[in-house]
Amino acid sequence: MASNRFGNIFTITTWGESHGKAIGVVIDGCPAGLPLEEADINAALALRSPGLNPYTSPRKEADRAEIYSGVFEGATTGTPISIVIFNKDADSSKYEPIKDLLRPGHANYTYLEKYGRFDYRGGGRSSGRETACRVAAGAVARKLLKEEGIEVAAFLSQVGSARMADPIGEEFASLRQSVYANPVFCPDPHTAEAMMKLIEAAKDRGDSLGGVVTFLAGPMPTGLGDPVYEKLEANLAKAMMSLPATKGFEIGSGFQSVEMTAFQHNDQFIVQEGRVQTATNYAGGTLGGISTGMPLIGRVAFKPTSSIMKEQKTLSTEGKEAKFALPEGSRHDPCVAIRAVPVVEAMLALVLADAVLMNRCVRVKR
Amino acid sequence: MASNRFGNIFTITTWGESHGKAIGVVIDGCPAGLPLEEADINAALALRSPGLNPYTSPRKEADRAEIYSGVFEGATTGTPISIVIFNKDADSSKYEPIKDLLRPGHANYTYLEKYGRFDYRGGGRSSGRETACRVAAGAVARKLLKEEGIEVAAFLSQVGSARMADPIGEEFASLRQSVYANPVFCPDPHTAEAMMKLIEAAKDRGDSLGGVVTFLAGPMPTGLGDPVYEKLEANLAKAMMSLPATKGFEIGSGFQSVEMTAFQHNDQFIVQEGRVQTATNYAGGTLGGISTGMPLIGRVAFKPTSSIMKEQKTLSTEGKEAKFALPEGSRHDPCVAIRAVPVVEAMLALVLADAVLMNRCVRVKR
Amino acid sequence: MASNRFGNIFTITTWGESHGKAIGVVIDGCPAGLPLEEADINAALALRSPGLNPYTSPRKEADRAEIYSGVFEGATTGTPISIVIFNKDADSSKYEPIKDLLRPGHANYTYLEKYGRFDYRGGGRSSGRETACRVAAGAVARKLLKEEGIEVAAFLSQVGSARMADPIGEEFASLRQSVYANPVFCPDPHTAEAMMKLIEAAKDRGDSLGGVVTFLAGPMPTGLGDPVYEKLEANLAKAMMSLPATKGFEIGSGFQSVEMTAFQHNDQFIVQEGRVQTATNYAGGTLGGISTGMPLIGRVAFKPTSSIMKEQKTLSTEGKEAKFALPEGSRHDPCVAIRAVPVVEAMLALVLADAVLMNRCVRVKR
Amino acid sequence: MASNRFGNIFTITTWGESHGKAIGVVIDGCPAGLPLEEADINAALALRSPGLNPYTSPRKEADRAEIYSGVFEGATTGTPISIVIFNKDADSSKYEPIKDLLRPGHANYTYLEKYGRFDYRGGGRSSGRETACRVAAGAVARKLLKEEGIEVAAFLSQVGSARMADPIGEEFASLRQSVYANPVFCPDPHTAEAMMKLIEAAKDRGDSLGGVVTFLAGPMPTGLGDPVYEKLEANLAKAMMSLPATKGFEIGSGFQSVEMTAFQHNDQFIVQEGRVQTATNYAGGTLGGISTGMPLIGRVAFKPTSSIMKEQKTLSTEGKEAKFALPEGSRHDPCVAIRAVPVVEAMLALVLADAVLMNRCVRVKR
Repeated sequence: MASNRFGNIFTITTWGESHGKAIGVVIDGCPAGLPLEEADINAALALRSPGLNPYTSPRKEADRAEIYSGVFEGATTGTPISIVIFNKDADSSKYEPIKDLLRPGHANYTYLEKYGRFDYRGGGRSSGRETACRVAAGAVARKLLKEEGIEVAAFLSQVGSARMADPIGEEFASLRQSVYANPVFCPDPHTAEAMMKLIEAAKDRGDSLGGVVTFLAGPMPTGLGDPVYEKLEANLAKAMMSLPATKGFEIGSGFQSVEMTAFQHNDQFIVQEGRVQTATNYAGGTLGGISTGMPLIGRVAFKPTSSIMKEQKTLSTEGKEAKFALPEGSRHDPCVAIRAVPVVEAMLALVLADAVLMNRCVRVKR
Repeated sequence: MASNRFGNIFTITTWGESHGKAIGVVIDGCPAGLPLEEADINAALALRSPGLNPYTSPRKEADRAEIYSGVFEGATTGTPISIVIFNKDADSSKYEPIKDLLRPGHANYTYLEKYGRFDYRGGGRSSGRETACRVAAGAVARKLLKEEGIEVAAFLSQVGSARMADPIGEEFASLRQSVYANPVFCPDPHTAEAMMKLIEAAKDRGDSLGGVVTFLAGPMPTGLGDPVYEKLEANLAKAMMSLPATKGFEIGSGFQSVEMTAFQHNDQFIVQEGRVQTATNYAGGTLGGISTGMPLIGRVAFKPTSSIMKEQKTLSTEGKEAKFALPEGSRHDPCVAIRAVPVVEAMLALVLADAVLMNRCVRVKR
Repeated sequence: MASNRFGNIFTITTWGESHGKAIGVVIDGCPAGLPLEEADINAALALRSPGLNPYTSPRKEADRAEIYSGVFEGATTGTPISIVIFNKDADSSKYEPIKDLLRPGHANYTYLEKYGRFDYRGGGRSSGRETACRVAAGAVARKLLKEEGIEVAAFLSQVGSARMADPIGEEFASLRQSVYANPVFCPDPHTAEAMMKLIEAAKDRGDSLGGVVTFLAGPMPTGLGDPVYEKLEANLAKAMMSLPATKGFEIGSGFQSVEMTAFQHNDQFIVQEGRVQTATNYAGGTLGGISTGMPLIGRVAFKPTSSIMKEQKTLSTEGKEAKFALPEGSRHDPCVAIRAVPVVEAMLALVLADAVLMNRCVRVKR
Repeated sequence: MASNRFGNIFTITTWGESHGKAIGVVIDGCPAGLPLEEADINAALALRSPGLNPYTSPRKEADRAEIYSGVFEGATTGTPISIVIFNKDADSSKYEPIKDLLRPGHANYTYLEKYGRFDYRGGGRSSGRETACRVAAGAVARKLLKEEGIEVAAFLSQVGSARMADPIGEEFASLRQSVYANPVFCPDPHTAEAMMKLIEAAKDRGDSLGGVVTFLAGPMPTGLGDPVYEKLEANLAKAMMSLPATKGFEIGSGFQSVEMTAFQHNDQFIVQEGRVQTATNYAGGTLGGISTGMPLIGRVAFKPTSSIMKEQKTLSTEGKEAKFALPEGSRHDPCVAIRAVPVVEAMLALVLADAVLMNRCVRVKR
């Protein structure tokens, strides 16, 4: 079963609880010969770090990944890469008073029902903290993709009612840069400003907002993704919907396709720049689950962060009526979708790295 | 890799091309002692059959499943259940003239790029025909779920601009009946009528429409779904996005959650009917990827059927400009989402059956 | 779990009971572009067929495989290859009288304990008949290996006290031919004669004998096999010990190594024919689970066929003392190891085909 | 692929090189509610520790496992258990002078061929050091088996020509104790003495010896092991043959069965102590890959330790003739089979723990 594992060939196994000693990830299946050092991973983790700005949780942990295995003389060796991140700044005492309350929108009830026990400190295994391991592994996957000439990116495209259009055209190289220059990871300055206003207002009310993260990859080779059940969009959907707080996934036109006709929606094949392309990209970069060579594009919906300062009605674990509010001074993300941006990017990289390796096995001759 | 396999413990492996000798599925991991006969499967296949009405493709194959193994004296034995469906009414000659054209919105281009060859007859492996195998396996999964007291359903909730609201309340038992009484598998008669009008108009234009299929399961036990990467919604998303023509997936509030605040979105825990429930169900039946006991609800977006009668511009496999239109007399579904209804239901059943078995292994004592 | 599946990338899923309608195998992961036709598979099945000679069971089924999918215009397409073999000559009535007896050395007791039911006809799923599916799949794997320049072989090297030495040297090409020219599949004529005498004598007593099957592959590339748990010998051991009636497995020197010292046992590296080889091959072709380029060699021990004509004491399924003897006219193999020869060869081919594909993913650049 | 992973439901992923920062294992799939502390694991590791006596390598590392996740308030929580063991006493400088030599009987040649690079320090990933992680995980598996009432044991039964008979009868409880009281882990004092003499003599010559480790489990429930490819003996064979230095595997009668007839070999079913048993146990505790309820018994052959002090001829990595000898003061195990005893026991526990969980999914009703 191995429910903490993801991937077929380029696989990750993550472990660790929010307030345990450490969290970590084992990457099994990364090819040998990839240049890799801790700084590659820490650069990625820094983007996910909270406390960068008022729009994310003030937890000031300095996440620092250590590589315990799989790298020798500056490159991967083909053996498992074990990455460990120690938990600092993990004050569990705040969780004592609320450990016997069912937290609205939170997983402590379901973990208790399933396992009969729960490491409640900081959300334990169900905490968003686990996603740091995905980011660490994603940094390795991204390096592998670079060797194949593929770039990935993600950005915040909507918060509440503030949304931006899909970026068009050739600015891929600069996109990632403009995303992370921005406190809300939205490359469009006007939308970013509107988002910040909404988030500040929600924060002032002790409340939180949802958001949409758009992901993009390119230039894409053709042929990635394996029919029938390892379709690129199927694995992307699983990857994204395995993230905490996700409620929806789209590839290409997504739900908008429902109100189109085939004549509008079918992307016309054309020859451009000497190769087969499509005039539009409603497909989002795949047909039959296999990459077309057009940019891969999709979206992930994040609900408003469940943990809020505002008091809510709930039950105790014994079923008595109770009130729940995060303790004063708790860390609290007014819009979890912001910090999800580098995580979505990491999941995209992991799915593509895996698809690249799987694609080496599909023809008799290479 | 096994890219034609789905599931962890209750697993299916499907095989077969649209116009090959047969298609089929091997179910490996179905527990022993489940009453099963071919009629169970054929009843499910009948729902997916085209030719029922003018709103689906006129192909008049009488799909009949045969069980070749795994059942003895009317019940499963714990050994693999092999189900075979022979292809009849598979006239491949129509595909000869179009075999060297890139079909817009279709997978023949990507298969050719990936594998260097393609069984173009009727769409080969990329055809929606593969989903008959999912329906056959889903019928078995549904019987297993019945033993656990869980019912599943799916229905067409939107076509183009015609949409219905989520059904509310206790009518679960009758829902499935009202769905399949209906030529467009929509339980709301008014919406169904509007859908039919839209579909007829699209058909007259030689065009097609997209749609949304909503799925539902209940009464749900708590505890189904395994964190972190085998979350119930992650596996549902993969299941649904592995279906042909899908562009989006939602659980519970889906993309709508983006415009809500946590105070609105967090479902309040209450005691009702003597057990813990939530006052609302924006979560859609899971928290942290594990079932809460509330109904499981989600939606799948289907693009308009790619194959249409209307002429479209395209390229030949050699990259020359060409025109593409389905040959006169071709089978053609004006809204693929209709026939997807029993398929979505089947995928839901497969994910839940697997989750039920996985859930047997999570505690020391049983 | 998928306990009827074998392999990582080149995977097989077998299904079917001895006296059901059919048995079969789905090969998922075979690369596209491999020339394949039914005759390739039927040639392999013919070698496993009983009734060739008095030394094997007289069952006169004419096994004929049909390819139902995955092959188009004479070559594999990259989609699953479904192979079906219908059961003929399956007279189940003989099994009625013994269905309530625990058969000594046979699996009906354990299946009943595990599953609470058992398709007793002809041994059901536990029958050696399942191995026909392995042979069918092995024929496909062998074709893939040929594209890589690798040949596989197996032969009967011991029956009771009659044994032959390992074949030495360069006769690989002719070895397979000399094996199958022989009614007991032993390439050494003197040993073969001794074996036949022993088997005839055992048969006359209504008893049966065990045997050893030796397997060989070459010329081997270096680098096949993945540490730590996918070592070549680990997967070979699993492959062979998953066969009915196997009791032991050896690679290279096997149990004989226990009485050697390292100075004797360590194969010395030398340059020969312009490449690195070893002066001896006690290792059997692997070091650290990865192929060295030397021939792969090992052995599998088969117990004497459990089903014999001679009367034995046993219990009924209700625990009463009883006598058990195969009904007059039953099929009965006096030495199951003979018919195991093509099956061992098939398993060797399956493990190697899988290792060849896995080995494509271990370096960044190809 | 995940070639560093073992198991289906109770899975382990090991990582780490002999002279890297640390080694470790992630257990994914251990049920919640198992009492567990670091002392449980360290007690098991102590048995594998070298330096206990003159018969094993003098490396004096104090292996101490730390549990980084998955345990809360003294019991497992159902989340992954991450165990880390830091490498101390890892002086890599000794390996510098021999890093460009192909080490006879060792994996550096094959790793170089496969991956193009190799962490040569102390054998890197191919070192026996990896087995410490198996022992750590095995300690957890053994605790799970205890909850099911199953005990496991292993012991050294042969070194060179000194061998002992299989232990008979009911002394299971005391067996494990008598094994580990002994410097060579052989429960028979006379054989132990003979073994020690042989090992001392080999050590004096700078050479090493092979050995056989016998494993045992009981009391066994019926029904463990899943046909066809997850047979208990198939998984045991894979488990054992994935260990460094193993050359052979047997279950029950093993290769000895080849010289028996079925009438001798078939274990007769009898009723004893009120339940179905067999009068003999040549099967070794399984029929058709499923446990019979009789003790599980088998053997593993270990070659003589490849690394010896005695000088051997070899090649450099450039193919030049050279001499190889371990540097003075190197650690050197004159019989690797001794330290393999707790490792074999661990692998047995891991296979059985997995089988116990898999067996929960095979019937409709529980």
